[in-house]
Amino acid sequence: MNVKILLEYEGTCYSGWQRQKNALSIQEVLEKAIQSITKEKVRVIGSGRTDSGVHALGQVANFKTYTKIPIEKLPYAINSKLPEDITVKHAQIVPEDFHARFSAKSKVYSYSIYNAKFPSPLLRRYVYFFPLPLNLEEMRRAADILIGEHDFKSFMASNSSAKSTVRCIKRFEILKRGNLITLQIEANGFLYNMVRIIAGTLVDIGIGKTKAEDMISILNSKDRSSAGKTLPAQGLCLMKVIY
Amino acid sequence: MNVKILLEYEGTCYSGWQRQKNALSIQEVLEKAIQSITKEKVRVIGSGRTDSGVHALGQVANFKTYTKIPIEKLPYAINSKLPEDITVKHAQIVPEDFHARFSAKSKVYSYSIYNAKFPSPLLRRYVYFFPLPLNLEEMRRAADILIGEHDFKSFMASNSSAKSTVRCIKRFEILKRGNLITLQIEANGFLYNMVRIIAGTLVDIGIGKTKAEDMISILNSKDRSSAGKTLPAQGLCLMKVIY
Repeated sequence: MNVKILLEYEGTCYSGWQRQKNALSIQEVLEKAIQSITKEKVRVIGSGRTDSGVHALGQVANFKTYTKIPIEKLPYAINSKLPEDITVKHAQIVPEDFHARFSAKSKVYSYSIYNAKFPSPLLRRYVYFFPLPLNLEEMRRAADILIGEHDFKSFMASNSSAKSTVRCIKRFEILKRGNLITLQIEANGFLYNMVRIIAGTLVDIGIGKTKAEDMISILNSKDRSSAGKTLPAQGLCLMKVIY
Repeated sequence: MNVKILLEYEGTCYSGWQRQKNALSIQEVLEKAIQSITKEKVRVIGSGRTDSGVHALGQVANFKTYTKIPIEKLPYAINSKLPEDITVKHAQIVPEDFHARFSAKSKVYSYSIYNAKFPSPLLRRYVYFFPLPLNLEEMRRAADILIGEHDFKSFMASNSSAKSTVRCIKRFEILKRGNLITLQIEANGFLYNMVRIIAGTLVDIGIGKTKAEDMISILNSKDRSSAGKTLPAQGLCLMKVIY
């Protein structure tokens, strides 16, 4: 059977989702936990890679198994073999052709900025600390420009490649609660480092270094160097995968 | 001059606020940081001890100093010598007779319960994970019984002592946001483990093991063994000290 699982993890101690030779990945830890439960060789397919240090509240993955463990017991069984920074929150049987990556319609990422005079010890693992005042109205005006289908090449890491750099941002909200500013972006797909580069560009706009209108020319330039810097991984969190 | 500072810290890696011989305390780390800045021997007075593993969003402390560092620069200077799990968020000059502990009128503590089927990797350092359903209405009825001036001896760690075990709870709210249940208690003072024992008693009430009305007899018994168990430290956070 084909099993779809919902995952939450803190990325701080991992090299990211994807299996790597000399570093510990979420995928490897998860595969080993599932294998020790099912006694089968298991390959787990994630909805997408999260980078080193990136968190997930709602990562989705699937794997094929012949296990006889009842599906509702499976999360408990797998969790008993997982460290406390990774948890399976749900498991369900899905059709054989379900593929966590190819079947995904859209994903929601959040990027959190802690905007205060001093950094927060309690939030530090989950936010990017930025002490200068940010003009949220200007940031929202610029974010609105990115909504819709565009070539996001300017917002892709320059050392990366993709068949197509066209993506569709379905929703882009900038929320503020106390000192915490959260960018929430839903898109049909994301280029490598896309959210972190967009976040860096918006911070430049928030401090007035770049104008909100300049987002149009940055987008049109299709040139990574016209956008802002890539903000650090720990502010990024994969919130939800929509199928 | 007498300096009052506002502190945030993650208690995970410390033996608590108070200096100890063979363990690392917040007080010791803070005193060393201030001393390395002011080049004076400094004694920092906290509003109260927080236990091993307990966090603070708004701990207050004071210390006497002859430093010539301008007061508005002082947090930056001290923070430059502090690890990232402790931050000074504000400093101000106060009258010589201000005493972080004796001048405090009341304190606000929160106790956070993550009430879901599976634990949360992202929140795990700051919450007590409890998987069974909790009846919030019953918990709120029981909490209301505790509001006001009472002898809270039933809710004091049995290996501890206090001149008087009478305290006044000014406010007691139980909030729910998603899977997170937060008890917020403001009182003129707290006995040793008082919030954690009250929280444990309320969880017993939330699952129906104890009735809400029983809170009256538990309170009147003045007997630690009639109350619930002491919940773990990591759910507790000192939110605010009021002067």
